Amino acid sequence: MNSKKYNMWLQYQPVTDSKVKEQYQLLLDQVCVIGDGIQLQAAKEELLVAVPQMLDKKFNVSNDPYNSRFVIGNKIKLAQHLDESKQAKLADKNEEAFLLSSDEKQLIITGNSDVAVLYGVHHLLRLMQLHADITQLDIVEQPKNQFRMLNQWDNFDGSIERGYSGRSIFYQNNQFAEDKTRIKDYARFLSSVGINAISINNVNVWEEETYFITKKYLPEIQEIASIFRTYGIKLYLSINFASPVTLGDLDTADPLDQNVQNWWKEKTKEIYEYIPDFGGFVVKADSENRPGPFTYNRDHADGSNMLAEALEPFQGKVIWRCFVYNHLQDWRDRSTDRARAAYDHFKPLDGRFHENVILQVKNGPMDFQVREPVSPLIGAMPNTNQMIEFQVAQEYTGQQIDLCYLIPQWKEVLAFDTHIKGEGTTIEEIVAGNIHHNKYSGVAAVSNIGDDENWTGNTLAQANLYGYGRLTWNPALTSEEIAKEWIRQTFGTNQEVLDTIEDMLLNAWEIYENYTAPLGVGWMVTPGVHYGPNIDGYEYSKWGTYHFADRDGIGVDRTKETGTGYTEQYQEPHQSIYNDLDKVPDELLLFFHHVPYKYTLKSGKTVIQHIYDTHYKGYEQVEGLIEQWNGLSNDIDRERFENVKNRLERQLENAKEWRDQINTYFYRKSGIPDQHGRTIY
Amino acid sequence: MNSKKYNMWLQYQPVTDSKVKEQYQLLLDQVCVIGDGIQLQAAKEELLVAVPQMLDKKFNVSNDPYNSRFVIGNKIKLAQHLDESKQAKLADKNEEAFLLSSDEKQLIITGNSDVAVLYGVHHLLRLMQLHADITQLDIVEQPKNQFRMLNQWDNFDGSIERGYSGRSIFYQNNQFAEDKTRIKDYARFLSSVGINAISINNVNVWEEETYFITKKYLPEIQEIASIFRTYGIKLYLSINFASPVTLGDLDTADPLDQNVQNWWKEKTKEIYEYIPDFGGFVVKADSENRPGPFTYNRDHADGSNMLAEALEPFQGKVIWRCFVYNHLQDWRDRSTDRARAAYDHFKPLDGRFHENVILQVKNGPMDFQVREPVSPLIGAMPNTNQMIEFQVAQEYTGQQIDLCYLIPQWKEVLAFDTHIKGEGTTIEEIVAGNIHHNKYSGVAAVSNIGDDENWTGNTLAQANLYGYGRLTWNPALTSEEIAKEWIRQTFGTNQEVLDTIEDMLLNAWEIYENYTAPLGVGWMVTPGVHYGPNIDGYEYSKWGTYHFADRDGIGVDRTKETGTGYTEQYQEPHQSIYNDLDKVPDELLLFFHHVPYKYTLKSGKTVIQHIYDTHYKGYEQVEGLIEQWNGLSNDIDRERFENVKNRLERQLENAKEWRDQINTYFYRKSGIPDQHGRTIY
Repeated sequence: MNSKKYNMWLQYQPVTDSKVKEQYQLLLDQVCVIGDGIQLQAAKEELLVAVPQMLDKKFNVSNDPYNSRFVIGNKIKLAQHLDESKQAKLADKNEEAFLLSSDEKQLIITGNSDVAVLYGVHHLLRLMQLHADITQLDIVEQPKNQFRMLNQWDNFDGSIERGYSGRSIFYQNNQFAEDKTRIKDYARFLSSVGINAISINNVNVWEEETYFITKKYLPEIQEIASIFRTYGIKLYLSINFASPVTLGDLDTADPLDQNVQNWWKEKTKEIYEYIPDFGGFVVKADSENRPGPFTYNRDHADGSNMLAEALEPFQGKVIWRCFVYNHLQDWRDRSTDRARAAYDHFKPLDGRFHENVILQVKNGPMDFQVREPVSPLIGAMPNTNQMIEFQVAQEYTGQQIDLCYLIPQWKEVLAFDTHIKGEGTTIEEIVAGNIHHNKYSGVAAVSNIGDDENWTGNTLAQANLYGYGRLTWNPALTSEEIAKEWIRQTFGTNQEVLDTIEDMLLNAWEIYENYTAPLGVGWMVTPGVHYGPNIDGYEYSKWGTYHFADRDGIGVDRTKETGTGYTEQYQEPHQSIYNDLDKVPDELLLFFHHVPYKYTLKSGKTVIQHIYDTHYKGYEQVEGLIEQWNGLSNDIDRERFENVKNRLERQLENAKEWRDQINTYFYRKSGIPDQHGRTIY
Repeated sequence: MNSKKYNMWLQYQPVTDSKVKEQYQLLLDQVCVIGDGIQLQAAKEELLVAVPQMLDKKFNVSNDPYNSRFVIGNKIKLAQHLDESKQAKLADKNEEAFLLSSDEKQLIITGNSDVAVLYGVHHLLRLMQLHADITQLDIVEQPKNQFRMLNQWDNFDGSIERGYSGRSIFYQNNQFAEDKTRIKDYARFLSSVGINAISINNVNVWEEETYFITKKYLPEIQEIASIFRTYGIKLYLSINFASPVTLGDLDTADPLDQNVQNWWKEKTKEIYEYIPDFGGFVVKADSENRPGPFTYNRDHADGSNMLAEALEPFQGKVIWRCFVYNHLQDWRDRSTDRARAAYDHFKPLDGRFHENVILQVKNGPMDFQVREPVSPLIGAMPNTNQMIEFQVAQEYTGQQIDLCYLIPQWKEVLAFDTHIKGEGTTIEEIVAGNIHHNKYSGVAAVSNIGDDENWTGNTLAQANLYGYGRLTWNPALTSEEIAKEWIRQTFGTNQEVLDTIEDMLLNAWEIYENYTAPLGVGWMVTPGVHYGPNIDGYEYSKWGTYHFADRDGIGVDRTKETGTGYTEQYQEPHQSIYNDLDKVPDELLLFFHHVPYKYTLKSGKTVIQHIYDTHYKGYEQVEGLIEQWNGLSNDIDRERFENVKNRLERQLENAKEWRDQINTYFYRKSGIPDQHGRTIY
């Protein structure tokens, strides 16, 4: 496939600006590739695809650095071509750092490793797609985060848990995809934005997937690992904690049992025979019916350390998810608070985890809602490796039908100052490893791709995948910068397209929040599906997800005095801010407090009027998005235009249902009419 | 299989009472069967199974009526053995009428046809299982209803729509069941209670099932038809109205198109070549996404008449379902009322249907809720054949987990006096054909069986299948009589067992109603599944099923003055009764009126207090059922005891959820506390 929708942000459209083109043509007549590492080969391949397309000319590979204007290679191979100042620039940087250096006569891309050069090449191609001047480059970049990971929630049967873009590109009907083209192209896209780790199967490891770590499937996984390796991406597998039992070898999976420990050691050794640079295990244990150490009266440290010991000789990691809570809660029980669960479970274990265990903590205490406070667990375990987990897949944020550009949400999370080690202890610095200086840290996220030709269902949802990579590489980038970059590369140079889509993207999260669950209360979605409104859908459920709306008011009291005490999991000043009705930010009010419908927000509106206003507004804003998009009908190719148009129309239907159900529900309950007398059913 | 659970009410347990046994042994030393019709053979076979088991002795077949105390045969074959008075008794009766006549020396079973004799034999065996005196019999019976039908909602893949007793006994994985034993035994059970018609596939006819009327599957269906024929049961097929298109022969299914008409004529002829006594077609058309005449701007009369013409030469029937409504209703639209739909659609067509079309009308205007008014369409079309449709499958009434003996509900429906032709125009007489005297009428129902060893999931749900047959044969039987009959035959003669189960059965419907949706409002179930509470589950849906609860009150205004005018579909006095808040019966209040929570019922309680009281009571009643059942632990075989015990425990869980969710929901909405201060969450 080589369609515009398929190519996402690697369109490599011909450069039409003649001056720019001339400049590029001059420097990029040929490339001299010094070295033969596989990632260097991938860089070369990418150039051979991109440059001829963009510059409408032949583009050759040369072996002669002295007669080449364009030279790439890692800093060892290129040593004699790098003066001291250039060498110095890379000296204190990490393995993935690259250098782009140019003048009118020569362009050098080098780096501290081959994959760094690949990143540098992608950076050049990005600059070229943005029509930047490439004759005065002096760019040194290294990724701020060590782990920049994606989790595929793909099942072996080809379905994808929380997938909204078709079926798996990895599996079909309990077989590995025979044609690996899409896997390779996915790796290209990921490496272009700096992703360096991937787990390729669902964290819910079902029966047959349990066998992924056996001879039955390792040869095929080996092949996939080598595709990703070419692009600098380490392969991980989600494993079933009960594997020793499920695979039929033992009658226990007790992590303190010597036989179990040996079993995992042997098993791990076997995996590394197939994949010498295997990343390690991703584990969802004792969570939502998945097996784990609790079965044997052991804890998460026991469970993860046992796996860590098996992986340690090979430098493998255990990525242990902290999404642990009582999913069989009685809705009548108000003493249990799901928001508390991750912290309550893991915080006491700080210091007990091995050096190659990394805890993966969701960004919020609940589950990827449109609005949640930041998880108080992140940064709260100074002696434990942690990664934050985002969700690129729009599970609760419109399922790639509705537009929801998530970078602003993630930016807000990263900017949150936990005060765990005083002011400036932001999530951004914590996950970058700059606060606790643990061995490993970083970012993971659930992928949003499938085998839809455009990868992400809604073409505009490609921006979230792009932005996830860019942001984890460089969290200093703004949402606007990332949007601009993505739009230019994806849709070209038309200024109206650029401005319009940028505006659409930047407002999308707020719009989605406006017409869905209000003021941080979350969850008013159709159970199971998680799309569309169902205000009481989770109210009498086992999932710990309640809003407690009655005729007088709504919200969850999580204060220390009268509520669940969840606020105490935060450092000051957050503890006091969240705990205090007068200080809590409006957008999180109902997450922390139960208030009357007539309670006045800091905005000056009552809660009920805020609900009405945001829901009418949200719907109108979607109408606005449609109008904006329709204005681009002549500026965007038909296929991508129609794809987004169709999704926006479905979004409008969804917004209408949300608006009317939310407003009707709260009007029926509160009896308080809309100040503006708009229609409520 | 020959277990107690499998044998349902045909246990044929040894008679332990020595006097009774002696009497039976004396009369039933052998049987003389005069005639060789297939149903007579079935009768003989049944006797050969039953009598030796019950009487613990050999039992032979003889050809000599003069030396046999027990003679069976139809009245033609037995003519010379029947004196004039006996002949006279059958003379004015229908084809299915039987006569049991006995003194101490001879027992004769005869009837107006072979199948009548089979019914007579089953009647004898029933009497014997009840330990009745069989030496002074003078019983003439004929079924009151002409059609006594069951609809299987079995799919070819083996699933059963709304099936709660395992998989299909007819189909497995898109093949016909190879072993037809269960089909034969099912036919035995059905004939024992007088069922005379069956449709063997789901009214929702999917892709592959459309081919049932082709050479691909007719040979297999022929085989099934012949099994049922042996037991006097005519086989029907549900058909896809779009068959001419789906089967690829034509590009239209327009009923007024000559080619379509001819196609159906040819198709029908083909079916009759395989099954000469084929019953006809059951059709769900223009209902819940099923194709129908509306596609071609034709109406239900056009559609059904076209099929009727094809069937007419073979005496086949079209059974056309009236479950037609707008299933894509906007919940905001209060002018559309699903309850009106069947009457609005069909009443204007009265007189336009061919003589071999029968309209099948659900007992209520909505869909088999625990409480609905009687459908005003039944009897409202004097020039049209009609059948009523019940649901033996407990879709909305506990899904054969919860106990719900449905005979009292059906009795109430049958007893409803429509006043359509003045006082005494009961549903019972209408469906029996005694009011409008149309050619055909009767009763149909959705079956509740599957391949669970006990057929019905919950052993006690067998009583509904039994009772359905008995009641449609003889609607004069009381719920108590039917219960007693069934319990004795199923569980034996222990008086405590009899009394306890009878009490449990007779209270079950009220108990179920108590803890579920109150006062006729219906629908507060989990969408799709239809089990367990979800009070707002259908409130903002497309299904036309709303309760309109707000902080002040609840219910659907269907009055003529301020509501949907549905009440006008009834004759007086019902029209006035239902329309008048002061006259409407409590149990249907919320079906017809929207009232404040503090509205006082005729019972003297407010609506809200009624809700609280019934829900606490319903739960306690289920505890009572468990206590009752546990008292029988030594009186019932382990398997059946545990089966029911387990179901009752699940019922208690369900009742608890209903109680607490309903009470919490209405307390939160109304703010009115329970007078007795019981726990509300």
